[in-house]
Amino acid sequence: MDIDAYRDLDPPARVLLGPGPSNVHPRVLRAMSMPSIGHLDPGFLKVMDESMDLLRALFKSANTMTFPVSGTGSAGMEAAIVNFVEPGDRVIVGCNGLFGERMIDVAQRCGAEVVPVSAEWGRVIEPEAVQTALRSQARTKLVCLVHAETSTGAWQPLEEIGRLTREHEALFLVDAVTSLAGCDVQVDNWGIDICYSGTQKCLSCPPGLAPITVGERAMRALEARKTKVQSWYLDLSLVRQYWSAGRFYHHTAPVNMIYAFREALRLIHEEGLEKRFARHQLHGDALHAGLEALGLALHAQDGHRLPVLTAVRIPEGVEDLKVRQALLNEFGIEIGGGLGPLRGKVWRIGLMGHSSTRANLVQLLTALEAVLPRFGFKLERGAGTAAALAVLDG
Amino acid sequence: MDIDAYRDLDPPARVLLGPGPSNVHPRVLRAMSMPSIGHLDPGFLKVMDESMDLLRALFKSANTMTFPVSGTGSAGMEAAIVNFVEPGDRVIVGCNGLFGERMIDVAQRCGAEVVPVSAEWGRVIEPEAVQTALRSQARTKLVCLVHAETSTGAWQPLEEIGRLTREHEALFLVDAVTSLAGCDVQVDNWGIDICYSGTQKCLSCPPGLAPITVGERAMRALEARKTKVQSWYLDLSLVRQYWSAGRFYHHTAPVNMIYAFREALRLIHEEGLEKRFARHQLHGDALHAGLEALGLALHAQDGHRLPVLTAVRIPEGVEDLKVRQALLNEFGIEIGGGLGPLRGKVWRIGLMGHSSTRANLVQLLTALEAVLPRFGFKLERGAGTAAALAVLDG
Repeated sequence: MDIDAYRDLDPPARVLLGPGPSNVHPRVLRAMSMPSIGHLDPGFLKVMDESMDLLRALFKSANTMTFPVSGTGSAGMEAAIVNFVEPGDRVIVGCNGLFGERMIDVAQRCGAEVVPVSAEWGRVIEPEAVQTALRSQARTKLVCLVHAETSTGAWQPLEEIGRLTREHEALFLVDAVTSLAGCDVQVDNWGIDICYSGTQKCLSCPPGLAPITVGERAMRALEARKTKVQSWYLDLSLVRQYWSAGRFYHHTAPVNMIYAFREALRLIHEEGLEKRFARHQLHGDALHAGLEALGLALHAQDGHRLPVLTAVRIPEGVEDLKVRQALLNEFGIEIGGGLGPLRGKVWRIGLMGHSSTRANLVQLLTALEAVLPRFGFKLERGAGTAAALAVLDG
Repeated sequence: MDIDAYRDLDPPARVLLGPGPSNVHPRVLRAMSMPSIGHLDPGFLKVMDESMDLLRALFKSANTMTFPVSGTGSAGMEAAIVNFVEPGDRVIVGCNGLFGERMIDVAQRCGAEVVPVSAEWGRVIEPEAVQTALRSQARTKLVCLVHAETSTGAWQPLEEIGRLTREHEALFLVDAVTSLAGCDVQVDNWGIDICYSGTQKCLSCPPGLAPITVGERAMRALEARKTKVQSWYLDLSLVRQYWSAGRFYHHTAPVNMIYAFREALRLIHEEGLEKRFARHQLHGDALHAGLEALGLALHAQDGHRLPVLTAVRIPEGVEDLKVRQALLNEFGIEIGGGLGPLRGKVWRIGLMGHSSTRANLVQLLTALEAVLPRFGFKLERGAGTAAALAVLDG
């Protein structure tokens, strides 16, 4: 093997404005690069406890069972579902984008009887539709919704559906992968029983962990299972024994990722949650105004557009991939393409966590103004940034 | 929230001589702290390809399907089992320690009909015992063994059992969590179809990834499944689409962990595999000589003792936890306690990867010489280090 052919790592400089990862604050990278210690070292147990405290405050929850799952956001989804679904359980899933579809796939692999409540990709799920599904004669175990649908940019309201779910004595499971730390997530107030996220979106931590929180009602359902959880790795009845006073060894925790996670949480609480949500909202509003001023159309339902992830329609005649390559190669800016039925139809722009800055927003709009006319798309130069700045400066 | 109460991360300085994590080389920590980029960025795809090349060379395998699973070593175990076991499949599992038992648990959660081939904790599994199990009338799908049993220090020979397994047209699955990069693992030559490891042992990378390699016969078995893999997150028929030319999005790869992984692999190949195995063997031999010269007894079967992980019996009257605490608090040295039936009966000492140095070995023996007499254990001062040095200096 010619090992000299494998050079020093040299990742390109990027402004990460896709659907994740977002740019990571240098303090998080520095924390992650501290020397590894043992996963049962008293020094590490303190890091775990503090991370749990900071995470509870972020989820706005008093749930004891609140910690990062040792896998990416999708592992969080799987943990959230496999622990609470047994074969034959009736599960209602909101299906209006890729991540709702993925929940259906995961639930079916657990033997669930899935009842999809569908809406067009880009629209939100209406409480009435969930209520109809809940009113069926069969008892529902779980209602699953995606708070921020990363494939469409839709922002799902949760509070009323949370209330309905509880009325029907089902558990309420929410995917907050793209919303947590960018949009308000009130686990306890909104009656959410199980909520998970990922680290690489609005938390601005590298990908690799899935924060999760599980309430008492859900823990009782876990304890009442008749069958073993099908995943040993994600079995919360085992994992919880490590993330609690017993510190019983389950698997070796990803120590350095948890260093990074704790530091990302510190940054979030230093900024303050409400101030952080307002920053994301302001930059999202400015982006939306700027894109519309350029003559582009936003994909998600009006009134339900996420500030942190925007799906914008690709104009007729403009080549998806060539635009993204020009942004990446000429400006160092990453944005995302569409998924599933929206492939080639939308771009997905993230303004998440440390990436959600005035400078990044203005750079992106300027780059789009430079690139789009190459494809015959007519726009008024300067209109995008002017509209965005008008929002930013109030 | 009083965020100022959460101080700058300040992990204690440790010499990691437990069952993992091992000490991480500064170059690996530096690589890990490079800025995150997108998981579909051309710059990252190159990092992935190079990691796969370097990992194939480490596994001594030409398998295309060779990459790190996005979870710790236990996720590697689960991926290795759930993809190849369907309900009712007959699975033979060598059971002579905690990790064999864990494989049984994971396989049963997939609905396997498990046939355990047991040996005392500390002894290896004999080929004859596996042969007897294979000769049953029912067709066996999978034979699973742990190469380096981290709970006992036993070093399982694989070659003959690999040959027998192939004769019976079963698949051979090997847990190389603690051996890979410290002991020789010859996936192709030994007829191993599925092999996984962890990053935090002899690879000396932080915990969080599970390198895996899967051969053609196993891939055909995956393609021939009648049922979906029960884990969506670990479904290799999906994950492979990301770790190959199509780069089809499955989940967001843990980008910075893969930076670290690639750098750890570079260090391994810079040293050279055979030289690295010889270093681990020499330091393991010296440790064994040193411990025996102190009057301690090694737990694993003579002739089958791992150089990278040593289980040593705790002498009568010596308090397990107090010794480990003294090593940690006075010397900054971490060693591991026993698991399962060996809890309180053995200590587990790792000399893995970057932790396997002459200096660490001498430090540990000296610290044991200082601490053990406090519990009334009689030893000859200097005997341990002298015996170790005699081995080291040939």
